[in-house]
Amino acid sequence: MTIFSQLGIDAMIVSGGTNRRYFSGWSAEDHAADRPSGVMLVTPDERTLFASPTNLPWAQAEALPGVETAALTGAWTENLASVIRDRGLLRVGFEDVVLPVAAFRGLESAIAGAAELVPVGPAIDDLRRVKDDREIGLLRNALRLTDEAFAIGADALVAGMTELALARIIQEALRDVGSEGEAFPIIVASGPNAARPHHAPGDRTILDGEPVIIDMGARVNGYVGDLTRTIWTGQPDQQLGTMYRLVADAQKAAFSAIAAGVPARDVDRVVRDVFARAGLEEHFVHGLGHGIGLRIHESPFMGQTSDDVLAAGNVVTVEPGLYIPGWGGVRIEDVVLVQPDGYVNLTGATKLLDV
Amino acid sequence: MTIFSQLGIDAMIVSGGTNRRYFSGWSAEDHAADRPSGVMLVTPDERTLFASPTNLPWAQAEALPGVETAALTGAWTENLASVIRDRGLLRVGFEDVVLPVAAFRGLESAIAGAAELVPVGPAIDDLRRVKDDREIGLLRNALRLTDEAFAIGADALVAGMTELALARIIQEALRDVGSEGEAFPIIVASGPNAARPHHAPGDRTILDGEPVIIDMGARVNGYVGDLTRTIWTGQPDQQLGTMYRLVADAQKAAFSAIAAGVPARDVDRVVRDVFARAGLEEHFVHGLGHGIGLRIHESPFMGQTSDDVLAAGNVVTVEPGLYIPGWGGVRIEDVVLVQPDGYVNLTGATKLLDV
Repeated sequence: MTIFSQLGIDAMIVSGGTNRRYFSGWSAEDHAADRPSGVMLVTPDERTLFASPTNLPWAQAEALPGVETAALTGAWTENLASVIRDRGLLRVGFEDVVLPVAAFRGLESAIAGAAELVPVGPAIDDLRRVKDDREIGLLRNALRLTDEAFAIGADALVAGMTELALARIIQEALRDVGSEGEAFPIIVASGPNAARPHHAPGDRTILDGEPVIIDMGARVNGYVGDLTRTIWTGQPDQQLGTMYRLVADAQKAAFSAIAAGVPARDVDRVVRDVFARAGLEEHFVHGLGHGIGLRIHESPFMGQTSDDVLAAGNVVTVEPGLYIPGWGGVRIEDVVLVQPDGYVNLTGATKLLDV
Repeated sequence: MTIFSQLGIDAMIVSGGTNRRYFSGWSAEDHAADRPSGVMLVTPDERTLFASPTNLPWAQAEALPGVETAALTGAWTENLASVIRDRGLLRVGFEDVVLPVAAFRGLESAIAGAAELVPVGPAIDDLRRVKDDREIGLLRNALRLTDEAFAIGADALVAGMTELALARIIQEALRDVGSEGEAFPIIVASGPNAARPHHAPGDRTILDGEPVIIDMGARVNGYVGDLTRTIWTGQPDQQLGTMYRLVADAQKAAFSAIAAGVPARDVDRVVRDVFARAGLEEHFVHGLGHGIGLRIHESPFMGQTSDDVLAAGNVVTVEPGLYIPGWGGVRIEDVVLVQPDGYVNLTGATKLLDV
C-alpha cells in the first residue's frame, strides 16, 4: 500500500471499529470509543488482528484472506507497544481522527520513545473512499435490497396509517428481503413533519395528498444502502407536485455534473443554483450528498464547504431536498458510482412522478 | 456538581454522544467519532447544547429542563474555542477518554493558550455510574419490557426452529411490548454454539434437550435492559441440568456478596470460587458483570482485574456462565440495583429450573 511510503511510516495501528473492519473483515463493533473490541497492526507485508481470547475464534472465523490473528494479553496499548518494540518499528501511524486522547497517551507512554507515533489524518478515509470491486459488489447488493424493501413499504402505504406503522413495515421488509437489517434508523416523515430532514417516525397519521419522505437503507456484510423517496397517497396537492418536479430536476442537474476530477462542492452548487432560480435556495438546508461504505456517512462529502474532489470508485448519495416549515418537504436520494467520465446510478427504486 | 471543584475546572466540554445525552437529554447519535452531532459546554451554573442549525429544533425538543441550546456556526472546535475565550474560562475539562487526538489538537490550537484543557479521565463515567431516580425508573422500564419480550420468545421456542427465527421473534416482541427496540444484537446460541459467549444467531436448528442461551435487552428513552436466560425444549440432558444448577448457585453466591462498599472484583471472585470447587473455573471465560445505563457496558465492571468499588445507585448485571467447547454452555444474567446493605433484583424473568 502506498499509504506507507506517502506517510513515511513502517506500520500503522488501526483501533477504530470501522477501519478495523475495513482492513480485517471482522464485524465486531466497539463497546465504546475507549473499549475497542480489537486492534490491528498493519505493515506493508502483514495485517495482524489482535482480539481478546474470548473474541479470537470469532475474529478468526471472519478474517479476510491474508489477515493473521493474535490474542491480546491485557491492555491493547501495552500489548501493541511491546510488539512495536520487539519488531523494531520506528515510525508508526495512528488514527488521530478517531483515537481518543487517553488511549494515545497510554500508547505513547508504553512505547517510551522507542518509536515515533505519526498521525495519519484522513489517509485511511481517503483509501476507503475509493471502493474496490468486492466493495462495489456489496454496495450493489445493499442498494438492491434497499430498493426491494422500499417497494414493499411503498405498496403498504395507505392514508390513515401512522408514520411508525409504516416504518415498522419497512424495518421488517429489510430483513425479509435478506439484509442484516436497517443501516440507520428509518425516517418516515409525513405532512409538516417532512419539513424536518431528520424527523423520527411518530404517531402522526398520514393523510391523502401530503408528502411522505421515506429515508432508509439495508446493510449487507456491513456495507450500507441509502435511499430516499417522497411519496403520497391519493392526489398530491399542487405545491407538492411543483416542489417534487423541482427537486427531481435539481437531482438530474447534479447527476450531469458528476465525474471523476470534479470538485464535490461544484455538484452541490449546481443544485443550489437550480433552487435559487426558483427563489428557494434557503430551503435546501443540508449538503447534497456523502460517500457510503461501511459507514452511512463517509467521505467524499458533497457540500458547500467541502474540499473533496470526486474520483472514480467513489460511491456517493445525491440527495437534494426542500423543506418548508409548516407545510412539509421533498427529498429524493439516489446513490451513484463515480466513473472517469460520468456516473452509474446504483439505485433502482421508482420515482413516483416517473410512473 | 462537585465534579468542577474536584477537578479544579470552571467548565467542561462534552462532545461524546453518550455523555452528551446524559447531560442534555438529546437522543442524537454521532455519525462517527470525528463527526459529533453536537457538543456541550457545561459549567456549574449552565448547560449549553450546541447543534447544527439543521438539528437545532430536534435538540430543543428533547433538551432536559435547564439545558440551553445554541446553533453551531462552523467547526465545533473553533466555535467552542471562541465561546471559551469570550467567557474568560481558564481551566476547561475535556473527555480524554473519548475525544479523538485530532479534535483535541484542533481545539487546543483554536483556544491558542487562552485556557488550559484538563483531561477529566473517568470523572463523567464515575458520575454516570450512580443512577438517579429518573434513571432508575427508565432502567426499570427497560428491564420490565425486556422480561415481557423474553417471555414471548421463550413461549415461542419449539424444537426444529432456527436460532435466527427465534431471534427475529424476540426482536419483534421487543417492539411489540413498546420499547424502542433491541439495545444490542440479540444472541440466540443453541447446542455447541452456546459454548461461544458472543455467538450471532444463525441457521442452526434447535434440538430437544440442548441449551439455548438467549441474551437480549430492550431500550427505553435510551436506557437499556440486559437479560440472559438458558432454556431448552423437552428434557434437558444430564450435563445441562448439572451445569445449570451450578451457574444458578454461583449467581446466588454473587448476589449475597453485593452491597455498597464491596470491591467489584470480590463479587467476581465469589463466582470463580464456586466454579473452582467443581473444577470448572477455566470455563468461566468472561467477567461477572458490568454497569448498564445509556450504554450496555459501562462502569462499574465486575471482573478479575477491576478496581471499581460498588456504590449505592449502581445498576449492574450479574451474569455467571460456563462454556464447554463441543458441548455448549449456560449463562444466567439478572440486573441488580446496589443498595447500602445489599441489592434489589430488577429482573423479573423466570429461571427455568425454578418453575
